Amino acid sequence: MGKKYIYFFGNGKGEGSAEMRALLGGKGANLAEMSNLGLPVPSGFTISTEVCKFYYENNQKYPHRLSAELDKNLARLEKTLGAGLGDTTHPLLVSVRSGAAASMPGMMDTVLNLGLNEETLLALINKTGNERFAWDAYRRFICMFGDVVMGIHRDKFEHEVERAKKKARIKNDTDLTVKHLQDLVKKFKDICKKDTGEDFVDDPRAQLQKAINAVFSSWNNPRAIKYRELYNIQGLLGTAVNVQVMVFGNMGNHSATGVCFTRNPSTGENALYGEFLINAQGEDVVAGIRTPEPIRNLRKGMPHLYEEILRYKDILERHYRDMQDIEFTIQEDKLYMLQTRNGKRTAEASLRIATDLVKEGLIDKKMAVMRIDPQQLDQLLHPIFDPKAKKVVIATGLPASPGAATGKVVFSAEEAEELAARKEKVILVRKETSPEDVAGMHAAQGILTSRGGMTSHAAVVARGMGRCCVVGAGDVDVDYKAQRFSVNSKVIKRGDYISLDGTVGEVMRGQVSTIEPKLSSDFATLMNWADEFRKLEIRTNADTPQDAAKARMFGAQGIGLCRTEHMFFGEHRIDFVRQMILLAPEVKGLKVRIEALEDELRKAPKEKRPELKGEIAKLKKSLECPNTLYEKALHKLLPMQRSDFEKIFRTMKGLPVTIRLLDPPLHEFLPHEEQSQRGMAKKMGMTLKDVKLAVARLQELNPMLGHRGCRLGITYQDIYDMQVRAVIEAACNVKKKGIEIHPEIMIPLVCTAAEFGLLKDSINKLARTIMKKKGTRVKYAVGTMIELPRAALMADKIAEQAEFFSFGTNDLTQMTFGFSRDDVANFLPDYIEKGILEKDPFQSLDQNGVGQLIEIGVKKGRTTRPDLKIGICGEHGGDPESIEFCHRIGMNYVSCSPYRVPIARLTAARANIHGGEISSTV
Amino acid sequence: MGKKYIYFFGNGKGEGSAEMRALLGGKGANLAEMSNLGLPVPSGFTISTEVCKFYYENNQKYPHRLSAELDKNLARLEKTLGAGLGDTTHPLLVSVRSGAAASMPGMMDTVLNLGLNEETLLALINKTGNERFAWDAYRRFICMFGDVVMGIHRDKFEHEVERAKKKARIKNDTDLTVKHLQDLVKKFKDICKKDTGEDFVDDPRAQLQKAINAVFSSWNNPRAIKYRELYNIQGLLGTAVNVQVMVFGNMGNHSATGVCFTRNPSTGENALYGEFLINAQGEDVVAGIRTPEPIRNLRKGMPHLYEEILRYKDILERHYRDMQDIEFTIQEDKLYMLQTRNGKRTAEASLRIATDLVKEGLIDKKMAVMRIDPQQLDQLLHPIFDPKAKKVVIATGLPASPGAATGKVVFSAEEAEELAARKEKVILVRKETSPEDVAGMHAAQGILTSRGGMTSHAAVVARGMGRCCVVGAGDVDVDYKAQRFSVNSKVIKRGDYISLDGTVGEVMRGQVSTIEPKLSSDFATLMNWADEFRKLEIRTNADTPQDAAKARMFGAQGIGLCRTEHMFFGEHRIDFVRQMILLAPEVKGLKVRIEALEDELRKAPKEKRPELKGEIAKLKKSLECPNTLYEKALHKLLPMQRSDFEKIFRTMKGLPVTIRLLDPPLHEFLPHEEQSQRGMAKKMGMTLKDVKLAVARLQELNPMLGHRGCRLGITYQDIYDMQVRAVIEAACNVKKKGIEIHPEIMIPLVCTAAEFGLLKDSINKLARTIMKKKGTRVKYAVGTMIELPRAALMADKIAEQAEFFSFGTNDLTQMTFGFSRDDVANFLPDYIEKGILEKDPFQSLDQNGVGQLIEIGVKKGRTTRPDLKIGICGEHGGDPESIEFCHRIGMNYVSCSPYRVPIARLTAARANIHGGEISSTV
Repeated sequence: MGKKYIYFFGNGKGEGSAEMRALLGGKGANLAEMSNLGLPVPSGFTISTEVCKFYYENNQKYPHRLSAELDKNLARLEKTLGAGLGDTTHPLLVSVRSGAAASMPGMMDTVLNLGLNEETLLALINKTGNERFAWDAYRRFICMFGDVVMGIHRDKFEHEVERAKKKARIKNDTDLTVKHLQDLVKKFKDICKKDTGEDFVDDPRAQLQKAINAVFSSWNNPRAIKYRELYNIQGLLGTAVNVQVMVFGNMGNHSATGVCFTRNPSTGENALYGEFLINAQGEDVVAGIRTPEPIRNLRKGMPHLYEEILRYKDILERHYRDMQDIEFTIQEDKLYMLQTRNGKRTAEASLRIATDLVKEGLIDKKMAVMRIDPQQLDQLLHPIFDPKAKKVVIATGLPASPGAATGKVVFSAEEAEELAARKEKVILVRKETSPEDVAGMHAAQGILTSRGGMTSHAAVVARGMGRCCVVGAGDVDVDYKAQRFSVNSKVIKRGDYISLDGTVGEVMRGQVSTIEPKLSSDFATLMNWADEFRKLEIRTNADTPQDAAKARMFGAQGIGLCRTEHMFFGEHRIDFVRQMILLAPEVKGLKVRIEALEDELRKAPKEKRPELKGEIAKLKKSLECPNTLYEKALHKLLPMQRSDFEKIFRTMKGLPVTIRLLDPPLHEFLPHEEQSQRGMAKKMGMTLKDVKLAVARLQELNPMLGHRGCRLGITYQDIYDMQVRAVIEAACNVKKKGIEIHPEIMIPLVCTAAEFGLLKDSINKLARTIMKKKGTRVKYAVGTMIELPRAALMADKIAEQAEFFSFGTNDLTQMTFGFSRDDVANFLPDYIEKGILEKDPFQSLDQNGVGQLIEIGVKKGRTTRPDLKIGICGEHGGDPESIEFCHRIGMNYVSCSPYRVPIARLTAARANIHGGEISSTV
Repeated sequence: MGKKYIYFFGNGKGEGSAEMRALLGGKGANLAEMSNLGLPVPSGFTISTEVCKFYYENNQKYPHRLSAELDKNLARLEKTLGAGLGDTTHPLLVSVRSGAAASMPGMMDTVLNLGLNEETLLALINKTGNERFAWDAYRRFICMFGDVVMGIHRDKFEHEVERAKKKARIKNDTDLTVKHLQDLVKKFKDICKKDTGEDFVDDPRAQLQKAINAVFSSWNNPRAIKYRELYNIQGLLGTAVNVQVMVFGNMGNHSATGVCFTRNPSTGENALYGEFLINAQGEDVVAGIRTPEPIRNLRKGMPHLYEEILRYKDILERHYRDMQDIEFTIQEDKLYMLQTRNGKRTAEASLRIATDLVKEGLIDKKMAVMRIDPQQLDQLLHPIFDPKAKKVVIATGLPASPGAATGKVVFSAEEAEELAARKEKVILVRKETSPEDVAGMHAAQGILTSRGGMTSHAAVVARGMGRCCVVGAGDVDVDYKAQRFSVNSKVIKRGDYISLDGTVGEVMRGQVSTIEPKLSSDFATLMNWADEFRKLEIRTNADTPQDAAKARMFGAQGIGLCRTEHMFFGEHRIDFVRQMILLAPEVKGLKVRIEALEDELRKAPKEKRPELKGEIAKLKKSLECPNTLYEKALHKLLPMQRSDFEKIFRTMKGLPVTIRLLDPPLHEFLPHEEQSQRGMAKKMGMTLKDVKLAVARLQELNPMLGHRGCRLGITYQDIYDMQVRAVIEAACNVKKKGIEIHPEIMIPLVCTAAEFGLLKDSINKLARTIMKKKGTRVKYAVGTMIELPRAALMADKIAEQAEFFSFGTNDLTQMTFGFSRDDVANFLPDYIEKGILEKDPFQSLDQNGVGQLIEIGVKKGRTTRPDLKIGICGEHGGDPESIEFCHRIGMNYVSCSPYRVPIARLTAARANIHGGEISSTV
């Protein structure tokens, strides 16, 4: 026996079932399932997706047995209904609909009322006694068939309808008389003939075959392809075709059509929710000409049918163990179920339904966890705009950091801080941001940039802070000089109000009111369930005690990344930081030269010595002053950093805190605009020229590949020493107060084991000295970020000394692809559009490429240190797919921004459940 | 029986041999070997390097059996000589010398005349009847022992000698009388007592032990450590200690000391070459107080001894099968051989000796190939300064590209071109260079930059061109405005002459005359032998027909990298290139928007359509003008590129030519200095502001990770199409003339297989069209560079479509380390100095890290395409160690700059011989 291509359903049973979604499509599988459940489904059959696959693989031909199988099923359908396709007494009318395994609403084609021609039309009139209904059905059929099968633009038919209504001076389609409809049918057929040169197909069997062809062909129409691209739908065989007997909701006042959700999709409340229209077809509901009534009104009008629906609701929910989105039609007092599927819902509803279903015993906790889309939680965690407020969107950009913000436009970080200090709400608008803007970003309600992508500086920092942020709004033309920006012809000046929606990327004029989200008890319940099932530890990236506290509230189990440099930008600090940075190279240069000369002196012949000695003395003299200032700057910064760390240790009491030593290139701490440079010159007693010179000296052609990370620690050991001292002293101080601490010192941008070893030795030496002096001992770990391809490749050597690894996947992605995340916007859109990349690798980890390096790193690292603790602290730590990857390859933790901690908790649980035990049908 | 720690030699046989170099050090092994050969070696014994290792691993203690073994060997030595250490009749005097497996000349310590004290001194006087000789020996011993063993600065002793001479009003040490020497001995002993608080050691056995201790300790003195670092000497156990009976060349006119090479180390001529001094000790030759005589004079003075040396020369050469560097001493008419080792020689001598030894039947061709150091060949391939010329070195930098150049200083590429056009020789001096300077660099004799490292733009391009180049001369302070540079207080103005030595990195004032190198017939012979033994194909990186011709002359078997962009900088071209670059984004932007609107139009409701249509028409209108100009620019560039390719195909007739499509970011083609921008604005009918805007728009934060390589081909397909058209049309044209061609089109910076596939498809499609039109077919390959970590990781997928791989190890090194080669100078010196990196990974391939990725790429690539042709075209293609790596992992070819082709040919042969069959002792 060959393969079965067609599956019959109806009369209380179906050959298919809900499990056969891949083969029958979502619609077909659920029609079969509903039949099996004994629900009144109009009979029909489903031609499987394998036929679609065959169709495309064989130059649009069908399997040779298909035709016979189609005939057999058609005959069965006719027998079931006691009607015949083309029968002039009991004509069978069918719908032909597409339906793939994944929902692609509105993307594919449908033909209704198929089977009508001049003769069956008469039979329909006879049978229903409703001439207008029959003619209306006929003209609808010709229009749909003309559009879907014959490829004639629907507008042409609609144009005729408009003309007819105009001529007859009527407003609604429903006012068209039989005469009008008859005229339209004629005109429609003329259009078909004129457009295609062929007569409209009258033979119902031919109509059916052509409609089936058209549905299969529609699978690869541009709209459908684009949709699949957009929603990343992959790996399907194709669409199925559902042929189903027509039922009519428009056969009078005992007929109706409706859609409803078995629970409220907005709140999750356990009550039928939906709407219906008396005497209407499904498309009338969509067209919006008549306003549908809420479903509860059905209870009054047709109480027995309402009860019947309620009964089916229970059957379906019990069966599918989830909230259902159903379509029904009532034809002359008889209820037909046309569709059921899992209903889409808000995050809030999602949580409520899942917890309710557990209470009702329909699902268990694991299943509940699998029912929540982690990404959707984001909606709940940030302020949102009042849905009732009026919005004037003037530009859109990338939704870099979710939330809603409203404030006055300012164009500099300094001004943002000033105004914020005066309790004004501001939106910081920049072409792009740099580390010197961080304090201003923190002070602002939201950040808008005209450049940059989802992982630009602005985006990353804003997400970390939980600040609403829209980036890469290309139409926004920022003019710093004039202190305004324009979008097309609209101009927004400094001080004007704008609003940002960081969740969708919209920029709005004026103040749009916002509402604070409330976290329901369902949220807490679900998070606790998730925690029961996950293996991955969830940490957070937090640079301040405030962020740390927030993350702890969201359930973070430690800090996976505390960036010390963000602490450098405070008002009282940056001057000392700059002092340190400006002097470090000079001091170091002088010291190196003195050393070299002293070396030379030892070997020099007598006669050269006095000269050398003189030079050494001169150099020592010129070292004195900068060295004093340099040491003073370091000395000033030490207590500030120490106190930061103390606060963070206290906040994270009992939990690990990973502190990364200085990472960014030093020039990021210097001002790049002349005005700020002038200010700095004044403050530091330098000339503007000298400041410019110092800035220029630190400038690099490719700073991302330059003098940064632990390379700074190698060349300017004093700076790392100061930071290590601050960490260890803070740890000793806090420990002495009886607070449990787990400091972890993280060395960034390591590329060789020797580099790490050198720095670790010096950290340990310093720590021993400090602890001895403090008279206490703290346990601390020294580990490294794996963020360069070479570090992953050499992980076995590095792990000989490193006590933990944290994958810095932002940089690792940059290096592995050779993409600068600050410049990628120039070509990434083309790469996505042309399908070269499925998605932005800075948003979702490139598991195929970068993932290989991570796996190499994990595997090699554990060869030399089997108990190596491994985590990730790049932006990907908050991305569900990436978190699943981290779980799969056996990491110990992920670290993400505070606002993504709940998402990570949930994802980690899902990954563990998914990997181990049950799988979701959502 | 335990381990043997001490090896005796003398009396015609040695317990060791030349093969035991690792254990006995070079000196000890050769002393044993010479003994075995029956040469008159003063007897002695060698304490092995294992003792040194033990000494350091056990807190400076010795193996417990060592003392007994030392006594035994000492007794044997005494017996052999009929003398005793401390014997007051026949005192034994010995030398104690260090000697590791690798030569570390002058880096380690020696004590001579050990065994002397007041009593043995008298015995020596008695025995020799030469009181002055004896006292002189004694004061020398005290000085050396004081310095080496007791740690007293040698100066202190010398100071006394000077005082004594001054007081006695004599000039030379040789004029010191017995009385003077006796006084000095007393003073020396006083110094020892005063400096250390201890009496000078009189017991000869204690002297010996202390001297041995001192030699072992010297292994880790700072000088020795530094030397090993400098010359990258690794993996040694330690030093051996050689204790050997003293022989004296200063016992009168029948005594002498000398050093000689068995062949001329400068020319290779087969004749004894060296010098000697009558009545002198070895150190007198070095001190340079008396002028030694050429060795041939020994023939007259001591003909029998000269004959004896000639006899030993033959024995040694036959035995070692190489030219020897020997030391001898004649003590009262008896010849003693003190040392033999393979002699250092110039490249020229190296070639001659190797070919001569083959002719003499001493070695075979393979061995000859193994005898030549590939790096050394560099000396022969570039012009050099006349060794007789006077040089005033004013600054030094990195020797970026070898050779010698003299010319007038200019500070801009344009001026270099102008002056060169007037046949003036110029040196281009820049802070750094960029691609817009390439034509000027080509026009100049040499290039000097104040910034950048060995793989900076200037360095790479200059090496490719074979231009002499010194980079990173930090003391050179360039002032473009004033058109001059200063070094410390010296000022060199535009038009002044300077000279550059690219081989050593020196900058000299004025014109230093140069000489052209001549390649000897030995060179050709050896290259041909090398070709017989190598498997790797050697190609060249050449961008012009001139370079290609030169490389072919040097034996290149094809072009492995032809960079199309270097062709863009010609005077008549750059304007069109710039036109193309400025317009490409605008044209593309408009086209994309038109497309989007047309898409929208298809789906739009009726009422929106007129508006959309209007907008589309408007955009099409504004596209017209830039598009016309853009196409014109492409149209102008096409024939230029085509003609370049035709010339190159002709030059490389019969050999493969790999052409890389446009690679650098577009902004590199735009002028960055205001003056040039002004010129461009004028030429192109733009305002200066617009030019600046365009330049700024193309600026990137990290251009190395930006919009470049095939990313340009993806976004601006027209540009790649133009280049592909030029290649294929050129190929068709040349083929029609009956010339055999093998074009290979190389796509740079690929990171995904999809990216490559898209571009390859479009290349093939275009090529088919062109070939059809031209009515001919050419075979061509399409391959890719593997220069991103991701490309190496995804090599299996990429090789499904790519027909060849060429590893671009410059970029691969940048990405794998996260090092920008333009910025690495800020920290790389520290990394080398601190031993984090053994060497600059841009000069010699990082086999441990980057090498892993290359191996992954090679292995994976061949899983999907077993016959994949794989090569390397980064700078490493000319580095011997890297070439060996390429051979080892099974690459098919390496490609290097023309001047390094011979080096690569030789290295490839050595790698194959080394891997397979014999190993060298050199």
